Amino acid sequence: MPRASTGRTAPLPHVAILGGGFGGLWATRALRHAPVRVTLVDRANHHLFQPLLYQVATAGLSGPDIAAPLRHILRRQRNVTVWMDEVQGIDVAARRVTLMHGALDYDYLVVATGSGNTWFGHDGWARHATGLKTMDDALAIRRRILGAFEAAEREADPGRRAEWLTFVIIGAGPTGVELAGTLAEIAQHTLPREFRIADPRSARIHLVEAGPRVLASMPEALSAWSLKRLRRMGVEVHLKAAVTEVDDRGVALNDGARIATRTVLWAAGVAASPLGAQLGARCDRAGRVHVAPDLSLPAHPEVFVIGDLAHVEQAGELLPGLAPTAKQMGAHVARVIRARLRHRAPRPFRYRDYGTLATIGRNAAVVDLHGLKLTGLAAWWFWLVAHLFFLIGFRNRLIVMIDWAWSYLTWQRNARLIVGGGRGR
Amino acid sequence: MPRASTGRTAPLPHVAILGGGFGGLWATRALRHAPVRVTLVDRANHHLFQPLLYQVATAGLSGPDIAAPLRHILRRQRNVTVWMDEVQGIDVAARRVTLMHGALDYDYLVVATGSGNTWFGHDGWARHATGLKTMDDALAIRRRILGAFEAAEREADPGRRAEWLTFVIIGAGPTGVELAGTLAEIAQHTLPREFRIADPRSARIHLVEAGPRVLASMPEALSAWSLKRLRRMGVEVHLKAAVTEVDDRGVALNDGARIATRTVLWAAGVAASPLGAQLGARCDRAGRVHVAPDLSLPAHPEVFVIGDLAHVEQAGELLPGLAPTAKQMGAHVARVIRARLRHRAPRPFRYRDYGTLATIGRNAAVVDLHGLKLTGLAAWWFWLVAHLFFLIGFRNRLIVMIDWAWSYLTWQRNARLIVGGGRGR
Repeated sequence: MPRASTGRTAPLPHVAILGGGFGGLWATRALRHAPVRVTLVDRANHHLFQPLLYQVATAGLSGPDIAAPLRHILRRQRNVTVWMDEVQGIDVAARRVTLMHGALDYDYLVVATGSGNTWFGHDGWARHATGLKTMDDALAIRRRILGAFEAAEREADPGRRAEWLTFVIIGAGPTGVELAGTLAEIAQHTLPREFRIADPRSARIHLVEAGPRVLASMPEALSAWSLKRLRRMGVEVHLKAAVTEVDDRGVALNDGARIATRTVLWAAGVAASPLGAQLGARCDRAGRVHVAPDLSLPAHPEVFVIGDLAHVEQAGELLPGLAPTAKQMGAHVARVIRARLRHRAPRPFRYRDYGTLATIGRNAAVVDLHGLKLTGLAAWWFWLVAHLFFLIGFRNRLIVMIDWAWSYLTWQRNARLIVGGGRGR
Repeated sequence: MPRASTGRTAPLPHVAILGGGFGGLWATRALRHAPVRVTLVDRANHHLFQPLLYQVATAGLSGPDIAAPLRHILRRQRNVTVWMDEVQGIDVAARRVTLMHGALDYDYLVVATGSGNTWFGHDGWARHATGLKTMDDALAIRRRILGAFEAAEREADPGRRAEWLTFVIIGAGPTGVELAGTLAEIAQHTLPREFRIADPRSARIHLVEAGPRVLASMPEALSAWSLKRLRRMGVEVHLKAAVTEVDDRGVALNDGARIATRTVLWAAGVAASPLGAQLGARCDRAGRVHVAPDLSLPAHPEVFVIGDLAHVEQAGELLPGLAPTAKQMGAHVARVIRARLRHRAPRPFRYRDYGTLATIGRNAAVVDLHGLKLTGLAAWWFWLVAHLFFLIGFRNRLIVMIDWAWSYLTWQRNARLIVGGGRGR
């Protein structure tokens, strides 16, 4: 049953925005002066600053440090209603979105539901190899990592203790590299004095990558620098190594090697949100939707797809699934809607690439700003300031800054809580 | 199979301490210079500052703000091993504790496993009326409270919306009063501008108490002041009202009234840990163990029971289940063990009561310091400074102070994250 308050009989056009990530939130904000009613739907109650999610997973930050309630962020924007609900289906012909708790009729639809993990058809692996996409994922990974050290301390058998002290991260993109580097620091610097039986310094961190280099989206020189740095930190990097099996006792690789471990983290595969397939448009192999130059669907100009879910090429290359891409697309879609309301022709979307960056560990990051390449300490400070700057909300920034300063000075991590999901395991 | 490293053949006497709350942690610390080996067992990896747990439940603080890993707190105390494990049974005749992942033989045993909730034989109520004892409880309550406002915003039917905006807290001891007062502030001040359909200011907060007054352990004048203050904040306080039924649609009271609500919080019944019953000693009706004047068991002087689990009377009154009681008992048991090792006679335990305090809301608390009674702003500052002072760890104190200052100035709450346990509900 559609909601009366959002029916099409109301005076202002109704824009439904699905997903409160960077794309959906930036589209919503850019519509603040437009003569429209906006409904923003997300299944979580918060916007998540995903670039720092790995720090929640590795107990450096607490969840609330990097997330803010969507309705709090948008409280002053009177033309927006925020709904915490889950999208069940989209009917582009009827211009209706079905939710778990109702339905929404729209005049314009912005689909910004992003991407999730894919285990490349091996859905059984998902149980053992935890992905990192949501806050729940991050807390699950934190539980597994800290729980593994606790289990090692309890374990009398040296063989099984070594399994608990072995960690395998699959995929050496930015997330995999961040997880591996941070885990190495935790094992070498944070935990050693606190254990009596297991020695965290004996922990082995394996980073498994199917391609020929780490951080494949970066220039080769930065990949090479990162690889050297990771190895110096004690991370065992396996390149051109495809995973053939994941179970509760370990990981098998295509060269026949087997790594015995109780903790596998998944940073390898990203698949577009399944909602893309419901739009009746052409999708690429990863499920991303091919859109027109203004980011609308060719057959349905009132429907837009943005962020990780959109397949947009520029100069022959697919735009990367990054926060800046999603933000720029969100802002663009708002401009298109405003132009259409004034019966003007919208301009095509143009992505402005300001550069990319990735962090490996303490004092170690790589930054690529179109020719200007930074590595090491300078890159790390650049990374730190950029992330603090973009983090939403003054208070979060302050707390994160204090948390980071504290961790930097003491090597400690502030969120080492094992909660939920059965503490015993 | 007992662990070799903790067998009785080792040179130093082995003290097993069960529970890392105030009692167990203080006993452990007080044994730091004693010629013993200590094993501290807790099913969580952290010590919890329970007096502030209600603030995590009401989204004012994040979990890591009020909890620190036990092994981090004790990292410098070389005679301690920390095990995260769950106690399955205690055999006082064999001097052995069975754990989920092994066993411990002891020379001295300190049982400090505290108390949990009891629903007074109505175990079915537990599903609807969430208690507040552990970090997981706090996060579950946070999920329910924030989720109820989200559900109200989605709800088209005014009757059902009112049910989502009704909250019932059962039990008007310190925890119940804190929850009710904070909920009233959230509804009146934190959320109003952020909702478009549901009006948080129309929320109704019911505090249900079977006895004749709130904060029954306080002097009558302070109870009366607190009652007036709660009512001024909009809390509907029901005194001499016993709950006869709790289900998923509401609460029934013994006067025949029924409150329709989707959110019931339980702050009424506390039962001692079931491990007390395994010690072969006399227990009171709540399951607390009667102990000798030095807190040991009459039939087993090598076994001590402390904290909420111990039944100790002084001047004819049962000692209260508070943090100071548990800390003092923990320190006392360490003194007794040290005395016994030197073949000296231990002194009986004497509780020093420094006073009690409770908070109701912003600028509103009550403090009873033996004759000196404070209410209102002065009491609130006293409460605030005392809690900051006793909070473990410099860094936590600093972050909590900033969080509190921020909340005080903005009325905002910093941890408004709905995570885990099925976000849709």
